[in-house]
Amino acid sequence: MPDPKQSPMDRALTLAEQAAGRGEVPVGAVIVHAKTGEILAACGNAMRASKDPTAHAEMVAIRKAAEALGNERLEDCDLYVTLEPCPMCAGAISLARIRRLYYGAGDPKTGGVDHGPRIFSQPTCHHAPEVYGGINEARAGQLLRDFFQAKR
Amino acid sequence: MPDPKQSPMDRALTLAEQAAGRGEVPVGAVIVHAKTGEILAACGNAMRASKDPTAHAEMVAIRKAAEALGNERLEDCDLYVTLEPCPMCAGAISLARIRRLYYGAGDPKTGGVDHGPRIFSQPTCHHAPEVYGGINEARAGQLLRDFFQAKR
Repeated sequence: MPDPKQSPMDRALTLAEQAAGRGEVPVGAVIVHAKTGEILAACGNAMRASKDPTAHAEMVAIRKAAEALGNERLEDCDLYVTLEPCPMCAGAISLARIRRLYYGAGDPKTGGVDHGPRIFSQPTCHHAPEVYGGINEARAGQLLRDFFQAKR
Repeated sequence: MPDPKQSPMDRALTLAEQAAGRGEVPVGAVIVHAKTGEILAACGNAMRASKDPTAHAEMVAIRKAAEALGNERLEDCDLYVTLEPCPMCAGAISLARIRRLYYGAGDPKTGGVDHGPRIFSQPTCHHAPEVYGGINEARAGQLLRDFFQAKR
């Protein structure tokens, strides 16, 4: 049972830690309905467990939230994720019409929002969320560094 | 039962036509294992039917092929799709390590391969497939034009 006083980003960080415990790259994502405050999805990265190259935490959360709402457009929803989304996830965020994106650590190597292809800044991007980066960045980044250091 | 003499792109076009019949944007995708010639996935766009913003034909096909192989890396696999992939799908193609991408019509408005963010040309892209665009382009493009014209 999640702590009701935990912020969405704290919850996403807990999910990232749990993902690391399963041998997944530690990323967690939470989708909140902005009008009701309801948490529609709270997911960790599941690429390894599901053997699915598309099962980044954000993708799993977007699919689950769309299922919960019965709608492929998540127009009044905000996404909290511990790492800057990659181009695939940024594309899905745009397609899903997510209202706001809050992310933790920036990702110069594989990010797609403030690094790499900067999906939302493209003139061909039809919907860009409001973006707030660097939320709990130190903790989110440390989780990833610890994970990859232990792998070496 | 698909015609065994049909090329993968012809099959993708048939899937796109069938998608249009269901009110989906007409895009079809086929994934072939290059070494065995086996068709691992053959899917049409399913965004509306599944109310899932990530259910582009390519994404559904990649997930299905990974499930068929029991592996999140589709390293010896080729993807045939009737439309230039969007940034989300191009990101997924890279993550899945698809060997070759054959696509039909170019998509200046929402493409992510030869238009828009050009995902595979980014210095932060870790795996880029060989890309062959313009396969059966006229038929693929006409399908889309007919679909959107009928909508207006």
